[in-house]
Amino acid sequence: MFAVSHAASESAMRSQCYEVMPVAWVESPIVDIAQAPMQGEGAPLAWLVFRPDMAEAIRDLRPGDHVVLLSWLDRARRDVLSTHPRGDPRRPRLGVFSTRSPDRPNPIGLHPVRIDAIEGPRILVSDLEAVNGTPILDIKPVLVPLAER
Amino acid sequence: MFAVSHAASESAMRSQCYEVMPVAWVESPIVDIAQAPMQGEGAPLAWLVFRPDMAEAIRDLRPGDHVVLLSWLDRARRDVLSTHPRGDPRRPRLGVFSTRSPDRPNPIGLHPVRIDAIEGPRILVSDLEAVNGTPILDIKPVLVPLAER
Repeated sequence: MFAVSHAASESAMRSQCYEVMPVAWVESPIVDIAQAPMQGEGAPLAWLVFRPDMAEAIRDLRPGDHVVLLSWLDRARRDVLSTHPRGDPRRPRLGVFSTRSPDRPNPIGLHPVRIDAIEGPRILVSDLEAVNGTPILDIKPVLVPLAER
Repeated sequence: MFAVSHAASESAMRSQCYEVMPVAWVESPIVDIAQAPMQGEGAPLAWLVFRPDMAEAIRDLRPGDHVVLLSWLDRARRDVLSTHPRGDPRRPRLGVFSTRSPDRPNPIGLHPVRIDAIEGPRILVSDLEAVNGTPILDIKPVLVPLAER
């Protein structure tokens, strides 16, 4: 049904890749993955250091803004399709799309954070559980549900 | 401060790219971007058609699950750094990181959807405002705040 045929999908799947480019990098005291807190469990302040050519894209961000960062988890394994949640072998193995494991085919992390301060191309955020040097791909404002607009 | 020097960031920014690969594609009656509803404003049912080798990764998804899809907005412009929100020229131009515009350096879309049905490698979702053929990069469970776990 609909317009995409399975044959078209099959051929697209063999050829089509896309390239992502970091727009910023994380500067954080977390240098070791083992130290990184699990999502939502508290994290130190971290700086995002933006490429100079991103000045126009970040110019309307303000301290106090709640945003979602998209990171590239460059130390993750991309060939893992199922895993024990939170790395706990006592929990049953789950398909990775039912987990927040960094190990997944496209290791993109979602991080809801609050902007604490801005100094030129450097943005200080709280609640970011990413390790030092992690590339950032995108920043989006948090969507407010329609009823609350 | 912290461990990443600016010089290291500068050199990384010139060389480092990463490749993303679709894990599924959207089959939707929306074929034209102009028809696509804005986020949160209602959308028809759509199928996600997964690559056969993603069976293990999707095996624990269930009808009723609330998930976030990450899409690759392949018709977006990647050289746009500021834009009029919702394409309305009467609104002042904003840096793209303060908007949900598809036009941005890494055009990754975030779509909160509900899973309605699963038929093998095909997953039916509601509330997806993506056009037919859009590549899907990832699926993540919606995070429940710590207090509600």
